[in-house]
Amino acid sequence: MLAIFDDDATIAHALAFEGALARAQAAEGVISEELAVAIVDACITTAISCAELAGESALAGTLAIPLVARLRAALTGDASKAVHKGATSQDVADTVLMMQTRAATELVLTDLGRIVDALGRLALRHAETPAVGRTLLQDALPVAFGLRIAHWMVGMADAAQRLRRDVEDHARIQLGGAAGTRAGFDGAGPAIALHMANELGLAVSEPWHARRIGIAAIGTSLAIAIGAIGKMARDLALLSQNTVGEAREPAVAGRGGSSAMAHKRNPTGCQIALSAALRAPGLAATLLVGLPQEEERGLGGWQAEGPVLADLFLLAAGAAEAMASVAEGLEIDDDAIARNLRDANIGTDIGESATIVAALVSNLQG
Amino acid sequence: MLAIFDDDATIAHALAFEGALARAQAAEGVISEELAVAIVDACITTAISCAELAGESALAGTLAIPLVARLRAALTGDASKAVHKGATSQDVADTVLMMQTRAATELVLTDLGRIVDALGRLALRHAETPAVGRTLLQDALPVAFGLRIAHWMVGMADAAQRLRRDVEDHARIQLGGAAGTRAGFDGAGPAIALHMANELGLAVSEPWHARRIGIAAIGTSLAIAIGAIGKMARDLALLSQNTVGEAREPAVAGRGGSSAMAHKRNPTGCQIALSAALRAPGLAATLLVGLPQEEERGLGGWQAEGPVLADLFLLAAGAAEAMASVAEGLEIDDDAIARNLRDANIGTDIGESATIVAALVSNLQG
Amino acid sequence: MLAIFDDDATIAHALAFEGALARAQAAEGVISEELAVAIVDACITTAISCAELAGESALAGTLAIPLVARLRAALTGDASKAVHKGATSQDVADTVLMMQTRAATELVLTDLGRIVDALGRLALRHAETPAVGRTLLQDALPVAFGLRIAHWMVGMADAAQRLRRDVEDHARIQLGGAAGTRAGFDGAGPAIALHMANELGLAVSEPWHARRIGIAAIGTSLAIAIGAIGKMARDLALLSQNTVGEAREPAVAGRGGSSAMAHKRNPTGCQIALSAALRAPGLAATLLVGLPQEEERGLGGWQAEGPVLADLFLLAAGAAEAMASVAEGLEIDDDAIARNLRDANIGTDIGESATIVAALVSNLQG
Amino acid sequence: MLAIFDDDATIAHALAFEGALARAQAAEGVISEELAVAIVDACITTAISCAELAGESALAGTLAIPLVARLRAALTGDASKAVHKGATSQDVADTVLMMQTRAATELVLTDLGRIVDALGRLALRHAETPAVGRTLLQDALPVAFGLRIAHWMVGMADAAQRLRRDVEDHARIQLGGAAGTRAGFDGAGPAIALHMANELGLAVSEPWHARRIGIAAIGTSLAIAIGAIGKMARDLALLSQNTVGEAREPAVAGRGGSSAMAHKRNPTGCQIALSAALRAPGLAATLLVGLPQEEERGLGGWQAEGPVLADLFLLAAGAAEAMASVAEGLEIDDDAIARNLRDANIGTDIGESATIVAALVSNLQG
Repeated sequence: MLAIFDDDATIAHALAFEGALARAQAAEGVISEELAVAIVDACITTAISCAELAGESALAGTLAIPLVARLRAALTGDASKAVHKGATSQDVADTVLMMQTRAATELVLTDLGRIVDALGRLALRHAETPAVGRTLLQDALPVAFGLRIAHWMVGMADAAQRLRRDVEDHARIQLGGAAGTRAGFDGAGPAIALHMANELGLAVSEPWHARRIGIAAIGTSLAIAIGAIGKMARDLALLSQNTVGEAREPAVAGRGGSSAMAHKRNPTGCQIALSAALRAPGLAATLLVGLPQEEERGLGGWQAEGPVLADLFLLAAGAAEAMASVAEGLEIDDDAIARNLRDANIGTDIGESATIVAALVSNLQG
Repeated sequence: MLAIFDDDATIAHALAFEGALARAQAAEGVISEELAVAIVDACITTAISCAELAGESALAGTLAIPLVARLRAALTGDASKAVHKGATSQDVADTVLMMQTRAATELVLTDLGRIVDALGRLALRHAETPAVGRTLLQDALPVAFGLRIAHWMVGMADAAQRLRRDVEDHARIQLGGAAGTRAGFDGAGPAIALHMANELGLAVSEPWHARRIGIAAIGTSLAIAIGAIGKMARDLALLSQNTVGEAREPAVAGRGGSSAMAHKRNPTGCQIALSAALRAPGLAATLLVGLPQEEERGLGGWQAEGPVLADLFLLAAGAAEAMASVAEGLEIDDDAIARNLRDANIGTDIGESATIVAALVSNLQG
Repeated sequence: MLAIFDDDATIAHALAFEGALARAQAAEGVISEELAVAIVDACITTAISCAELAGESALAGTLAIPLVARLRAALTGDASKAVHKGATSQDVADTVLMMQTRAATELVLTDLGRIVDALGRLALRHAETPAVGRTLLQDALPVAFGLRIAHWMVGMADAAQRLRRDVEDHARIQLGGAAGTRAGFDGAGPAIALHMANELGLAVSEPWHARRIGIAAIGTSLAIAIGAIGKMARDLALLSQNTVGEAREPAVAGRGGSSAMAHKRNPTGCQIALSAALRAPGLAATLLVGLPQEEERGLGGWQAEGPVLADLFLLAAGAAEAMASVAEGLEIDDDAIARNLRDANIGTDIGESATIVAALVSNLQG
Repeated sequence: MLAIFDDDATIAHALAFEGALARAQAAEGVISEELAVAIVDACITTAISCAELAGESALAGTLAIPLVARLRAALTGDASKAVHKGATSQDVADTVLMMQTRAATELVLTDLGRIVDALGRLALRHAETPAVGRTLLQDALPVAFGLRIAHWMVGMADAAQRLRRDVEDHARIQLGGAAGTRAGFDGAGPAIALHMANELGLAVSEPWHARRIGIAAIGTSLAIAIGAIGKMARDLALLSQNTVGEAREPAVAGRGGSSAMAHKRNPTGCQIALSAALRAPGLAATLLVGLPQEEERGLGGWQAEGPVLADLFLLAAGAAEAMASVAEGLEIDDDAIARNLRDANIGTDIGESATIVAALVSNLQG
């Protein structure tokens, strides 16, 4: 996930944007094929130093300005002028962010899928195992041990579906030029955008410069996914308490030890997930706060989005990966479950637990 | 909107829940028709004092406990015992909240629809009016004045669609009993839930006691809608500045005056919307923070949701209503638009603005 | 606490502001004594209907406009004109909010004091009781049971001190007039402000219309106090789990029951505190988001503050009061503590626990 | 600022902790001088590869475990065993974070001081310049142009003082061992902590493992400081609008350009500050959410704090540095100020503006 958002990937995507733009403009006759070939070639061969660009980008407030300057310097004459024609920094930045969003979403969804699969199996296996159900942190009535697991599973499956839909809806190309009017495209804006979207693997769209609800939608869906992972982590951490002992994370070499107490096995996967679940809401709120951006491009609001969305993906990926390993190796202690239920003295009637588990699992598969 | 979430409405919905439960249980043979009739009758005739119930509810931590106690006191024998049979406080609270969510969503969507309609007309009318486009609060290049309006419109239309979908997906009946196993329903849980969902106007569902992503989904969609309204308000407030003067809110008697300066016309609708847009993100974040709730019912996390979701609806309704009036009466000053564009000295090329406006409007209507 | 922020109290404070303004202006010769007497009299005798004012206030966007209109209508001639002379709506609103802040802070500090006192006694009593110390929700090494309690105590004492300091520093009179220049006070602004501050029980200050860090300071200190209360609640909820049983809330009639399970004793005080601790951060963040308010008075940012600060006080008061009762009646089970420690098999060496407890307690008293 | 929080600095501080611990334990006779010398030597000479440690730290969930393992491997016999004696991972992590906090605070305060100084001069210079005062983004009444500047200045000065105080109060050594009892220090805990605090430049303290209000205090004070900077940025961005033109950022080579419009001068410093002001509240809220951490060390809550506090410092430093340059080179256009005031037709009475400016400036210097 780090690789998706690092400087190298960002620069590579930005160069892909400039290349795709040139090709699309040539296809629509806005620039000549010859110029397009030269520009595409420059996008491939121009050596860009991340470190150097970082400084200039910080100063310029955008990556596109120094990057385009380098491409122009690497070319001559009309080709130099034709680079980035009609586009604006935000076109590059938003399109790159959406390309990263697509790739990052795949990673997160893959790990969420692993969790859902593993939990589905566990839920069915324990669909009739009576266990203590607990409300407000107090013993309540019996539940099937698998019922709680089935709820974890559905939470993550729902969150994954929501995230997928939002990314499909909103991971769109940005192409509008300085004020979002496509003034520099000789009237061929929609066609150019379509070519580019196809090449870059994004949905086509009218410009959406200061209309940011897609970013907020993706970001809040990520936060919900992280929260759904956190729900499993919270419960598992409680089940792993020494006085409860009904389940625990699998042992992983180098993980979960203590610098002071060799005997401990810490719920490190849960820790990662819960830490992410704590951090995600503030990040999602930031994207919401930024929605009322000024006019054709906001001051401050727009610039805050990129790093915040990247942080959300990093948290989601870390949490999903950690809990995928946990779900696949989860250790469940049937004796402890039975013992705690006996001690709770609340009988063993798990009601319709098994039916509910079956329904929750089959809803997902249907 | 206040009426939807006030104590009277909450109590009425809770009584509707208990009545529907009794009827559904009778339909499935879990209780006799006679008992159901007695309970339904008690739900209609028992006088419940809001003020009294409020104190007891605060103490008990839930409305359901004192309300059920009153119903039981109003009945005798088996009918008294059959009230609330198999259900738990959270079943009542969550179902009531979802009933309120449905009603409140309709209000918000109606006003969002008014805004979208009004803005669509304005966008088309000004689809070819050249105006100053501004990025980072600086004059940039010309845009059609209607292009900015079209973006406001699409933002709110998208947000409305998202909210509608989330409410359709997640405004579900809650019926699971104390630990979410439907232990007290003699195996007829799904059928009882279906009856009740139909009667109460909600989707049917397995219990979802500690799986709260539906609440978070609705809450974040509300916050996005509020942010989309805020985007229009932010821009309009900027356009209304005395040195800009391109648009302003309609005059409303008693609104927008100043206690110290009679000459002012304040953008009071924008103020309401921007204030809401500032407050919504923190509330949405609260719902996200609460997702990792403990086990079968969380301690603190669950209880935080009701008032926070109600606050989000109140803010959304206030902002949508205020901006609906503004959108419908928006005053646009063509002379000021032309003068500012002349002063900006950036030409009059609005590029493909008109095409983009037409596409944005027709996407919505399609 | 509700009474401090309700409409009646707000109107009463606003009338006190107008009366104090008239008296102060008379003392400085800005208006005649006679006019001041008439105004003060009108502030006392004019009947103001909350319900009526609420509607007009919502429309006007401020309480002051309709309230001043009523006072003016109740007077004639020069007295009518002299009401509210030189002041602006925000002067009234901010001053009233600071008066409410002072009163509300006293309530919160009183209950925090009760908690600190009760916990201090408990900490010393259990300063040498070996108990299981737990990190990452796993048994770690022994601690004195009183050590954890001492940390709760210090957290709340520190938070109380911080809150007190912020309120002393920032609960100031607001008096600046329409643009914060005191243009209508004939050069007597500082003297008038001083009179009013003394009469209304606030610190004197230059106008601070769009400089809102005092509000953010008080709000974040409240959120920290709520979080400190939440720390105790989190731990106590964990200690109250049936498998742990080391401590639990005192039994209170009507509190902590379950509508479905008569045998449960729920940690209702902890629930209130944890719910508050979940909601406070988003509210505090809202106050922080609002800091960059526009020019001499912000649009939206300023208006968001009042209800948010009131919510924070309500949450703080609710949490502090609930946990004060809990702290004063806390039930500690020495047998369970000893049994859990034995089962943990981690020895009984509590290190310097007793010394640390003594230091923490005496730091507070010093 | 990046250098303060990067991996190299973190490792260097962690080694300083282990060295200081050994020296302090030798001074108190807990380990021999000889062992201490060997350990201190190892802390200096052991080559630690950041990249390698990063992977292991991520797996272990803490930096201390692999770092201590390396030190132990570099030593033999008793020296190997005496490394990290009595301490726990959190002691290292928290102490390192507080060392970074001290250094980072100095940077932020230096730039805030530059801003305050520059603004103080500007405020006095324009203390009698009549300008348009604006409320709710509408022309209101005249103010001295320097009055607004004086408020910016006081906001930042207050925020700086608050930050300084919180860091002085809470940047404390953490030394408590695995469960915060100082069990491994042979009763010399307070003395060892005092030695170490002196050597590492921190305040001495009892352990504060799960009592995190110091972190929340520092974090919220940072967010308030960022908000105070953002207030200036918001106003300056509005003043820099082309139709207003009363002030603008100084021109900086490579900054504020546009990839599409050569004629623009963007308010890039304001952009950095406003972006920071948008992101800080969510981060501060995260620290507040984490306050109710579990028992002797929280699961997830504690681990979230380090990166969040570092982000807050990075945002504060970036915003303060950007606006320090802006404040020192601020371009004010007296002609535009006078023209706008004329156009507003609101007279020129700035009331007591000059007196208020003088009071605000002299309060700071007093």
